[in-house]
Amino acid sequence: MNVQPALVPPHSTIVTSEEIFDDPTSVAAIIDHTLLKPDASRSAILELCAEATDARFASVCVNPFWVAAARDALAGSTVRVCTVIGFPLGVNGLRAKLREAELALDEGAGELDMVQNLGALKSGDFGIVRGEIGAIAELAHSRGALVKVILETSLLSQEEITLSCRLAAEAHADFVKTSTGFSSAGATADNVRLMRSVVGPSIGVKASGGIRSLADLRTMIEAGANRIGTSSGMKILRELSTAVRANESRQEHMNGY
Amino acid sequence: MNVQPALVPPHSTIVTSEEIFDDPTSVAAIIDHTLLKPDASRSAILELCAEATDARFASVCVNPFWVAAARDALAGSTVRVCTVIGFPLGVNGLRAKLREAELALDEGAGELDMVQNLGALKSGDFGIVRGEIGAIAELAHSRGALVKVILETSLLSQEEITLSCRLAAEAHADFVKTSTGFSSAGATADNVRLMRSVVGPSIGVKASGGIRSLADLRTMIEAGANRIGTSSGMKILRELSTAVRANESRQEHMNGY
Repeated sequence: MNVQPALVPPHSTIVTSEEIFDDPTSVAAIIDHTLLKPDASRSAILELCAEATDARFASVCVNPFWVAAARDALAGSTVRVCTVIGFPLGVNGLRAKLREAELALDEGAGELDMVQNLGALKSGDFGIVRGEIGAIAELAHSRGALVKVILETSLLSQEEITLSCRLAAEAHADFVKTSTGFSSAGATADNVRLMRSVVGPSIGVKASGGIRSLADLRTMIEAGANRIGTSSGMKILRELSTAVRANESRQEHMNGY
Repeated sequence: MNVQPALVPPHSTIVTSEEIFDDPTSVAAIIDHTLLKPDASRSAILELCAEATDARFASVCVNPFWVAAARDALAGSTVRVCTVIGFPLGVNGLRAKLREAELALDEGAGELDMVQNLGALKSGDFGIVRGEIGAIAELAHSRGALVKVILETSLLSQEEITLSCRLAAEAHADFVKTSTGFSSAGATADNVRLMRSVVGPSIGVKASGGIRSLADLRTMIEAGANRIGTSSGMKILRELSTAVRANESRQEHMNGY
């Protein structure tokens, strides 16, 4: 099964506002175009894939049941298939997560967003948390895929966020990610800033959950995120086009003087 | 691996208010004592099991990661281990669900609450919905375990609830169940009544999601439920004891005349 090549920035590239906001395609290239509602239909998934192909998003992020359909719909495009593992609770156990990951890789997923084992973390069983991530990362990397570890920051203290980032880094995750979008709250700039400060420049930070506007996205990038998970990608690109056009006509106006 | 014997009423037994509300132990015997929060710690799971042993609940309902711990904690009691499969979104695909189920049965689960494939249902792929349930039910029954199918009624029309009940019945599920507790709404009396009217007396109906008081439980029983999923089981039993004592002293008072 072929995994789509990534034309998105390498996961360790930290993007800056100056670099990306002049060009809508470079914003699209850091967005995981996301539809994880359990009752999403096949036609909604196919529409998501068509939008992602046109906009050249980094990936579509869909539930495992839709991976094969997304792979087929994205054939020939640069968009990767991202799916979720142990989602959204993270407490289905290593062997179940491994099987989910293996099946998703077989069907064409190029990125796996796994939920860390929150129950083990809260019980002080940090070796279990790290071990799950390490096993999934080893499997994914052997298949050329990336692993993002969802911390679910809304359920964690600052110390637990710091610890989770360290465990993910030790287990060779490619990204840490704030939120599932199914808990009490999503990404905050403060949490993204903390995560970036812990993992440094060598691991990606994905902000997700509640990012619904260009302003939200910009806030997360400025806080240190280099990947954005959102179901508002099309709206954000429209906002960006409007902003770019307004800026161009302002420039033309100024040049007229 | 031994599965605890069930002393709960057979799943096809429809209970009535008159039969159970005289006796707290018969109320306990239809409650799945539930803790599915992703950040529940080991000590919280062990406390749940101790409560369930004392109260003689039907089961404890925990995430798959905790099945083995619950089995050990419940050894020697009559309480079964219930866990959740494809939870709470239901769209991780048949093979992942089968693996989760197999692992849970190996570790001692006696009841599996699986989420139906809502994406397939909404896409008109009813054979997929039925096929997933049938495969899990066949596996579970071969191991002496029960299967409850979570419909997630808050995301369904009345017609879809009716259809889902038929698919679950055709696939030999033991129960249909209203809700995960992780969606926009939980059990309603109207939905329980509809589900009971479709499945008749030969399949169980479990009401779950938002049941937090004795009054809620009574409403669900009267609507046709014969199993209740709640994280408020201890509170409900305390309310029931109070009600029974008040009734007894009222009787004594009346007998005094």
